[in-house]
Amino acid sequence: MTRVYLDNAATTPLLPEVREAMLPYLGEIFGNPSSLHDWGDGAREALDEARARVAGLIGGSPEEIIFTSCGTESNNFAVKGLAMAQPARGKHVVVSAIEHFSVLHSARTLEKWGFQVSEVPVDKYGLVDPAAVKKAIRPDTVLVSVMHANGEIGTIEPVKEIARITRELKIPFHTDAVATAGTIPVDVKELGVDALSLAGSQFYGPKGSGALWVKKGVRIMTLLDGGIQEGGRRGGTENVPAIVGLGKAAELAAARMDARIKQLTPLRDRLIRELPASIDHVIVTGHPRDRLPGNASFCVEFIEGESLLMLLNSRGIAVSSGSACTSRALKASHVLLALGLSHAIAQGSVLFTLGLETAAADIDYVLENMPPIVDRLRQMSPLYAKFTKSGKGGK
Amino acid sequence: MTRVYLDNAATTPLLPEVREAMLPYLGEIFGNPSSLHDWGDGAREALDEARARVAGLIGGSPEEIIFTSCGTESNNFAVKGLAMAQPARGKHVVVSAIEHFSVLHSARTLEKWGFQVSEVPVDKYGLVDPAAVKKAIRPDTVLVSVMHANGEIGTIEPVKEIARITRELKIPFHTDAVATAGTIPVDVKELGVDALSLAGSQFYGPKGSGALWVKKGVRIMTLLDGGIQEGGRRGGTENVPAIVGLGKAAELAAARMDARIKQLTPLRDRLIRELPASIDHVIVTGHPRDRLPGNASFCVEFIEGESLLMLLNSRGIAVSSGSACTSRALKASHVLLALGLSHAIAQGSVLFTLGLETAAADIDYVLENMPPIVDRLRQMSPLYAKFTKSGKGGK
Repeated sequence: MTRVYLDNAATTPLLPEVREAMLPYLGEIFGNPSSLHDWGDGAREALDEARARVAGLIGGSPEEIIFTSCGTESNNFAVKGLAMAQPARGKHVVVSAIEHFSVLHSARTLEKWGFQVSEVPVDKYGLVDPAAVKKAIRPDTVLVSVMHANGEIGTIEPVKEIARITRELKIPFHTDAVATAGTIPVDVKELGVDALSLAGSQFYGPKGSGALWVKKGVRIMTLLDGGIQEGGRRGGTENVPAIVGLGKAAELAAARMDARIKQLTPLRDRLIRELPASIDHVIVTGHPRDRLPGNASFCVEFIEGESLLMLLNSRGIAVSSGSACTSRALKASHVLLALGLSHAIAQGSVLFTLGLETAAADIDYVLENMPPIVDRLRQMSPLYAKFTKSGKGGK
Repeated sequence: MTRVYLDNAATTPLLPEVREAMLPYLGEIFGNPSSLHDWGDGAREALDEARARVAGLIGGSPEEIIFTSCGTESNNFAVKGLAMAQPARGKHVVVSAIEHFSVLHSARTLEKWGFQVSEVPVDKYGLVDPAAVKKAIRPDTVLVSVMHANGEIGTIEPVKEIARITRELKIPFHTDAVATAGTIPVDVKELGVDALSLAGSQFYGPKGSGALWVKKGVRIMTLLDGGIQEGGRRGGTENVPAIVGLGKAAELAAARMDARIKQLTPLRDRLIRELPASIDHVIVTGHPRDRLPGNASFCVEFIEGESLLMLLNSRGIAVSSGSACTSRALKASHVLLALGLSHAIAQGSVLFTLGLETAAADIDYVLENMPPIVDRLRQMSPLYAKFTKSGKGGK
């Protein structure tokens, strides 16, 4: 059967080069980087190299990189750690309404600890208005966290403009760049942020790898207390193979970013153009222009995204109906609801995230297989029957 | 050159079987376990299998296992998460003085959050007295955390006896079993604990793998907020290869535990017997009988452990001078000080931790090489010169 993986936002496959780079550290170079003997040396040198590569990807300094176990850890660390680091200043944080749950739920935890959280809304494209962030900021605000791009709808946020405001007001600004680092250009200096999260599994690096970049001089509380690893900022024996893989993936992403963007963008654009042309009542979600190169997201009216996903799967096509992290909760996405879409429409969410292995033939295959599947699902939908009966239906 | 790795407490090498089990998940089976399509299925099944294997190792139920990124995360999760889960009951926790820093520093963080922490002392062998734990418990105590064994001195703690007390008083009891799970028999029901931490890198599993077992019905706050992974108790895309490796390592440890203990114990005992016989002024640290099968720890008077470590390293022998997590801090171990040893003596700490690759010839090599090295170091020591001059010196 044809197999078409279009769920790269859930996780990307490992590049063979990344796997090759990792293998020695699953074998002979097994030492603990903290060890003072020869066995530790090889592991420690590998960490140093990976740190430089990850820093290089985002324009930071190696000593500003803190390795973590995933994007979720980076986001928890950033949101809780930055907010808790300024007890004298206040207990108020600002986030956008479409942050990943690792940010939003960290903010919820802060609320349990006596913080107040302001959620800045987004427009129908998912864009955060920097003026709205400015308005949400109070004298006791200790943190602003707005993502660089949303993985579900692809919209790229005006982080640079928000950073101009937070810098002026001297409020730490964290951005969740899990969807962008390694995928589109990310430069911490140009963005002007104070902290930035990234994850290897989003750009052909290993699961279990992530990093938090924290600008030199910015105070942060540890999330994982323990030994003196990562400059005392993150305890725990370093996951050397994963970190090496993250470094290699970062190096490759930096070198090949332009080519990758050039490969993905036209395929994405074809899906965004042709899918609504071949199926009635399909809404493109996210920003029409400022979006991730591999992201084509839609809401298909009168169907349930999960049913669509299952039937596409039966034809060998892997897509998702929102964030993988919550897919099994089977709830309407908070991101889509924040765009102003109704629950009914948000239920029909389908997300294609293209990757390096995506070819034009894969898009053909989707465009050929999806319309009859949607038809079939709609035939079973009482809502659709009612709609067509009313005389407004298409086809 | 002969190479003898005797630092298995810092980290163990991956067993070839564990690496083999992991490789498919660094290749074709790359899906996100949360994905609802076929690509997620293989990963999810692998998680289920690993969960059953880890549960099997410690006598728990699969649904009680929460996968983490390392022992340090498990300990932070347990100490902070259990302590914070009972706000109505109080803000007091009890730990032993020789806990790993991931427990002790988590307790420090709790202090910043308004908790009070009682540290129970140990005797000269590193044993915690259950009666002392009972005495430290107050009406507002919400957590007791005492490790199953200490990795630096090898002493196995009377966890079962402590659990009898905490059960009676209905106080959650966490034990850090990072040094014991996969090494000696660990059964959560027999121990009678409420939560237990373990780490794969301690028993020939991968770095970046760990678990927290939490007894059904025991409340715990999340440490990593985010998606609904791990039953909503630990967000973040699961590190499937590491979890698979942890599961395989757990399965092998359970099957081969007796044989491993039989292999290590006589080698350990030879070191403990013959090293002090061949070098003057050597103190065995830890319990003479109730100790980890691979642990032989000493304090060598009139030398610095780090210098000894370096010279042993130059002969191809890897040892440590305490916990790898703090080795680069070059401070006297809090564990050795808690035994009542002076700073001067604690400085001479040297820790041999034997593993599956350790052979009798390796012990011969150590016993042959170490005495002249110690002699050489002592010749350079002003303290030793003073001591021998006083007429009390040996050799």
